[in-house]
Amino acid sequence: MSVSTTWTESISGAVYVGEDIPVAYRTDRSGYVPSSAPEVLVVAADVDDVRRAVILAADAGLTVVVRGGGSGLAGGASAGAGSLILDVSRLDRILEIAPADELAVVQAGVSAAQLDAEAGRHGLRYVPDPASVAISTIGGNIATNAGGLRCVKYGVTGDSVLGLSVVLADGRLIHTGRRTAKGVAGLDLTSLFTGSEGTLGVIVSATVRLHPIPVRTVTVAAYFADVEQAAAATAAVLSARVRPSLLELLDERSLREAQDFLGVRAQSAGAFVVAQTDGFGADAEARIIESTFGQFTSRVLVGDDPDVADELLAVRRSALPALERYGRVLIEDIAVPRTRIADAVRRITEIAERHRSQIYTFGHAGDGNLHPIIVVPPEDASAERRASDAADEIFATALELGGTITGEHGVGVLKRRWLERELGPDALRVQRAVRAALDPSGLFNPGKV
Amino acid sequence: MSVSTTWTESISGAVYVGEDIPVAYRTDRSGYVPSSAPEVLVVAADVDDVRRAVILAADAGLTVVVRGGGSGLAGGASAGAGSLILDVSRLDRILEIAPADELAVVQAGVSAAQLDAEAGRHGLRYVPDPASVAISTIGGNIATNAGGLRCVKYGVTGDSVLGLSVVLADGRLIHTGRRTAKGVAGLDLTSLFTGSEGTLGVIVSATVRLHPIPVRTVTVAAYFADVEQAAAATAAVLSARVRPSLLELLDERSLREAQDFLGVRAQSAGAFVVAQTDGFGADAEARIIESTFGQFTSRVLVGDDPDVADELLAVRRSALPALERYGRVLIEDIAVPRTRIADAVRRITEIAERHRSQIYTFGHAGDGNLHPIIVVPPEDASAERRASDAADEIFATALELGGTITGEHGVGVLKRRWLERELGPDALRVQRAVRAALDPSGLFNPGKV
Repeated sequence: MSVSTTWTESISGAVYVGEDIPVAYRTDRSGYVPSSAPEVLVVAADVDDVRRAVILAADAGLTVVVRGGGSGLAGGASAGAGSLILDVSRLDRILEIAPADELAVVQAGVSAAQLDAEAGRHGLRYVPDPASVAISTIGGNIATNAGGLRCVKYGVTGDSVLGLSVVLADGRLIHTGRRTAKGVAGLDLTSLFTGSEGTLGVIVSATVRLHPIPVRTVTVAAYFADVEQAAAATAAVLSARVRPSLLELLDERSLREAQDFLGVRAQSAGAFVVAQTDGFGADAEARIIESTFGQFTSRVLVGDDPDVADELLAVRRSALPALERYGRVLIEDIAVPRTRIADAVRRITEIAERHRSQIYTFGHAGDGNLHPIIVVPPEDASAERRASDAADEIFATALELGGTITGEHGVGVLKRRWLERELGPDALRVQRAVRAALDPSGLFNPGKV
Repeated sequence: MSVSTTWTESISGAVYVGEDIPVAYRTDRSGYVPSSAPEVLVVAADVDDVRRAVILAADAGLTVVVRGGGSGLAGGASAGAGSLILDVSRLDRILEIAPADELAVVQAGVSAAQLDAEAGRHGLRYVPDPASVAISTIGGNIATNAGGLRCVKYGVTGDSVLGLSVVLADGRLIHTGRRTAKGVAGLDLTSLFTGSEGTLGVIVSATVRLHPIPVRTVTVAAYFADVEQAAAATAAVLSARVRPSLLELLDERSLREAQDFLGVRAQSAGAFVVAQTDGFGADAEARIIESTFGQFTSRVLVGDDPDVADELLAVRRSALPALERYGRVLIEDIAVPRTRIADAVRRITEIAERHRSQIYTFGHAGDGNLHPIIVVPPEDASAERRASDAADEIFATALELGGTITGEHGVGVLKRRWLERELGPDALRVQRAVRAALDPSGLFNPGKV
């Protein structure tokens, strides 16, 4: 391929063409694999590589799919014919940590876990903690505005982003945002790029907020007879003005599988909830959670031992890997108003029965963000179609309950046709106009978002 | 004027043409008065009026300037020749309060104070509290992404906005955002409209977060020998992992004037700081603030008596009205990294001396957002020019210290030429492209932001 010489001369990082592209680059963790292969893979060594790759791609008529850790769950980083994959994971330097201003400047390929560890040396932490915290990159987290367990108190990834450096479709590098806690000069381009799923430009670095490590953390966990009781208990906690730093729920089936996966003694229950409180009011808030949960169940645990906390959280974190043992999983990501959590879980159970699908539900009870996981067993030929039908009904349920089709994973390719239904045609037209203004030739992630 | 009949027939609210437009509609609280008069004033009675007024203005070749409470400080709502003023202050209904989901849906003309009072009946509050809370509208607060005293813990107005209804340049009504705590479907148009200063569309209603009223609030105040000591003390508080809900600083001159204005016994000091803590950790955090301040001064007060707290806060809130006694005031609004507060105040003092201007500085120490107030005495002919020169140097200082020219008031017309210097030409070009995508004919607030 003649393109190859020009490219290898211009790019300081690595360039792979056609069949030389490693097969892992064709998909992400969603498991969605396009039917055709990408043309070129550029593993950028620096920001200049990103700029040159964008310009070369535009000249060659290729579209650009940016890839960080490849841990996406909505097919956002999958790439097919006519596309260039731009791997930014080697832009992995922490450029600055400013402890007194509580901020850091990092390249896009730094992982959240890596930054969090470095911030810890200054008594600070980086709070966004998507489940994939160890493998996903901050650039990818920002591009999808990823959530995580701590969102209920500290907000999603976007709430920690102060500014961005972005390579645009014409190869220019712009800087958005600021280093100050506040600032309103001009349109909020930082928020516009955050969550844009790689469709407006390539995020190459970010200025992010750091937070002090809390002085104290207390964990409260409880087993409930059913999801209704668990949802009522979490709602009661929130209306008692308590602000837990974590409030997670597992349904009966997810709990069973997670315990089995971990090899711990099974605690059978209709639902499991684990909460944490942090800061100067942690003990007072934990006592209120304990007594509130106690009105709904007698099986409540409370303590400040980090090892016990890790064990309880491991149950929540094992729910997904436990299910991945059984086949491919469709990881849904609806969010509903907090008062509708029990309704949502009950209706998902009905949907599972109607479509003879295995659906397990867990998620962030504190902000109504649920992850119904549909397992597609490999030996069952029609399971894929039934799963897809069930997913459609889950999306419809989310919208019907006043919610959204994606709380934190993004739209990607997999939920495209649902986006118009959530946003309405006029808002979608505005989105397209904004996108066309920044990327008139449709260079970035065409067909996504 | 022939336009008038068509307009009065189409609009259910009030229409004023030419010289019938009340003079107060020509400016806002910035005092900036364009040299020519607006053509038409529409006082919209409902959302349909807004849509019709936008379409009629476009047909008549008029530009549209939206006005809420008229309390803006950057000339954003001032209107001159060729413009229609669209007053949305009569869209003043609270459409819904959903206590369990902790959100409200309000029309743009509702004041923050009005919503806060209504939320209070459910044990909730609306946290954004710009100094103008009683008179400014939520629509205007969102259009400027207004700040306030509680930002240091609870964020600016935009952090409380979940979704918007916006009338676009073609008269279409779109809905952005959601009712759920999280959601990432599509580009973040809600943040794009927030802070856009009326240049992208007309905000007619908003879905906003409410927060529980804190279980407890404690106030700590202290008098320091100079601003350096005060800044060091506030920095020490923040690095002790304390998260005050309010942390305000007044310099020597502002303190003196505020006390004089209130008629309270003068407490002479180089700087005054008032802090509050709230929530379950309020007492523990207040004790830390008290002992931290105690390392820098012996003059510390602490207490939970709401009347005493009101008196201490009254000093802060009186600083601006106290200065308005002496002439027109230029209210600047820089934000600097928190570690540069003392540098900024010292340099502002030097700038005042160099330009023989009266400058008083107070502001939000917790997030580095300072309001240098330049008083322009009416009898001094050259004071205006000296004030303008001083303001330019203040903006330059803010950028030099790694800050921004506007922390919370917006750019309006008054800081236009500084915007490019802060953003850079490429980012500014992107802003213009986005604006052109949404408002191709430049209908809204032309020449602003």
